[in-house]
Amino acid sequence: MKGNTVSMCLLFDYYGGMLTEKQQEIFDLYYNEDFSLAEISENLGITRQGVRDAIIRSESVLLDIESRIRLVEKFAAINLAVVEIRDIAQNIREVNQSNFFIKKINDSADRIVEITSTLTA
Amino acid sequence: MKGNTVSMCLLFDYYGGMLTEKQQEIFDLYYNEDFSLAEISENLGITRQGVRDAIIRSESVLLDIESRIRLVEKFAAINLAVVEIRDIAQNIREVNQSNFFIKKINDSADRIVEITSTLTA
Repeated sequence: MKGNTVSMCLLFDYYGGMLTEKQQEIFDLYYNEDFSLAEISENLGITRQGVRDAIIRSESVLLDIESRIRLVEKFAAINLAVVEIRDIAQNIREVNQSNFFIKKINDSADRIVEITSTLTA
Repeated sequence: MKGNTVSMCLLFDYYGGMLTEKQQEIFDLYYNEDFSLAEISENLGITRQGVRDAIIRSESVLLDIESRIRLVEKFAAINLAVVEIRDIAQNIREVNQSNFFIKKINDSADRIVEITSTLTA
């Protein structure tokens, strides 16, 4: 029954806070920690069907939120742009070093690489 | 009764899709179009108290979402970083032009300015 793990984990990263604490716990065990339904059931003292229902409910909540506000999609676009900016900054650094070296340009390029790294961390 | 308009509009921009269509309509008229409670009441054929309740409810929903997932805060931080990156890229452009002009560096700096502009648009 497991949905697309990568996208479910991504939705959970952004919108997990919209789930109840119990839903978060179950979702995390299932998708991030890769426990089976039976293992979660045993660990938490809930029926296997109860675990299953909680996961299906949580998936539906997360997908519904994304369909309404599309912020994961927006963040993904920002991430792509940031990666491109970092590549360009590294390019500037190399061109600068292999031509006429100007320290200020190097420092600036380094700073851009530094900032973009914190954005995609 | 109006809450902080700037932050309410910002929350609405990001999370407005989580409100019902009627709530979105009322919220938009009140915060973005600056209609009064009485004017909205008259236009939509709802009691003034009904309009008021809908706005208070919507504010509370939006604030609750932000307290759970903090994506508006995260976007604000990204925006600040992007503005800094754009400034640095413009700096690189100027330093490059007033020293040894390398076209590749100029083009790269321009491209960074271009990408950051789309991110904060």
